[in-house]
Amino acid sequence: MKLEKIGRYPFLAEPFHCDFSHRLQLGHLGNHLLNAADFHSNDRDFGMNYLNSIGKTWVLSRLAIEIYDMPRQYDRFFVETWVESAMRYFTNRNFCITGEKDGLPKVYGYGRSIWAMIDTETRQPCNLLDIRDGELAQWVEKEKENPMEKLSRVKISDQTQLVRTIDTYYNDIDINGHVNSVKYIEHTLDLWPLEWYRRHPVRRFDIAYVAECHQGDRLSFYLENSAPEEYLVRICKDDNVEVARCRVLFTV
Amino acid sequence: MKLEKIGRYPFLAEPFHCDFSHRLQLGHLGNHLLNAADFHSNDRDFGMNYLNSIGKTWVLSRLAIEIYDMPRQYDRFFVETWVESAMRYFTNRNFCITGEKDGLPKVYGYGRSIWAMIDTETRQPCNLLDIRDGELAQWVEKEKENPMEKLSRVKISDQTQLVRTIDTYYNDIDINGHVNSVKYIEHTLDLWPLEWYRRHPVRRFDIAYVAECHQGDRLSFYLENSAPEEYLVRICKDDNVEVARCRVLFTV
Repeated sequence: MKLEKIGRYPFLAEPFHCDFSHRLQLGHLGNHLLNAADFHSNDRDFGMNYLNSIGKTWVLSRLAIEIYDMPRQYDRFFVETWVESAMRYFTNRNFCITGEKDGLPKVYGYGRSIWAMIDTETRQPCNLLDIRDGELAQWVEKEKENPMEKLSRVKISDQTQLVRTIDTYYNDIDINGHVNSVKYIEHTLDLWPLEWYRRHPVRRFDIAYVAECHQGDRLSFYLENSAPEEYLVRICKDDNVEVARCRVLFTV
Repeated sequence: MKLEKIGRYPFLAEPFHCDFSHRLQLGHLGNHLLNAADFHSNDRDFGMNYLNSIGKTWVLSRLAIEIYDMPRQYDRFFVETWVESAMRYFTNRNFCITGEKDGLPKVYGYGRSIWAMIDTETRQPCNLLDIRDGELAQWVEKEKENPMEKLSRVKISDQTQLVRTIDTYYNDIDINGHVNSVKYIEHTLDLWPLEWYRRHPVRRFDIAYVAECHQGDRLSFYLENSAPEEYLVRICKDDNVEVARCRVLFTV
């Protein structure tokens, strides 16, 4: 059976993954998007399972999530995902978070991401289109729209303030021995107190991954309030090496 | 259709929920057990959904997990759960983590838990057997065995050492506004470096929940190495109020 270009994976807003407002925490939604990407690419034979067997792996370069209405406790929803484009060194993958409400289709939000492929030995970028004679290109979906504004470089001034430094521990670390992509999102959102979220739910979250961290690295968070609803965060590890930068848009 | 006494719920060891050893992190397994308990009790009309409608809620008092072989990345497994006994103020709930390997049934581990019911206004304990004329008793399953040693009080001496103090943030907090039960497990396991887990996977984890914490409470972790493979942890909040105590058995 030939698979569709768009994959569609079911998820549940689990009660212990929801915050005080009984809505799914953004970090857990981010994890679901990464799962959907992983399932979609594995099902189509260009996932981690195949890549690891030939000494390569996917690396998440950027992720952005826009939320209109975060799923509530026990909501069943789907993450649809598809490849928007595939260049030599990067591929764009889109997400649509969708479901049903009162029998009608409902969109909870969208996502965008950029991925690179690296050689697991040399850690050098590889040409995506060398994989299985460029088969990735056949999965590119050009019809399905993503209304979310495209990813653009997060520009951070030198007016940031160091607001927190944390240590990284066992639970921060993923199967590759690096700090888990979702943990950066959670640690960044933890910069605001719970009270803030009562009045200011997150509307959009962008993150660019710049360098890898390992257990024991200390992460420092530098914050800039760039517009009434917009905050920029630069995350650095020891010796002030930038590892990630985020832009958070709140509802004001 | 009459439901069985034993509920059985499918889960997947998601890749981003696995640690450096490509096995499921214990905190995520704990979350799956709590989900299974929630699904099982809601399906049988004595869950949070019904209780909240009559101004009551379940409170987790103790949880213990024993692991023979932690599920690996992409393993599909089931959490079976059933009520072992129901007294006036406490109910014992069991778990069996099960699956298939090479076509044969396989048990990954077991769990035990104790729950109380409280009034959400007064926070006082309620008699479980007052609910729906004692219907809970009809769900008690007496045949299914749990080979795991019963829960016993974790005795901690005064020979503990303060090993870490952490702040609690937005992502630590659950739908009730309290620190999530699973977060205590994660923060406790974070006391050991990743290198420790290479040689010493967790064999059994016990936790007793003593008092509730809110966002902003500072948690202090006091550690005692009570036997070669056994560590006890007392978790206190500000003013040295005990909030939880854990016993961790490692493979040595």
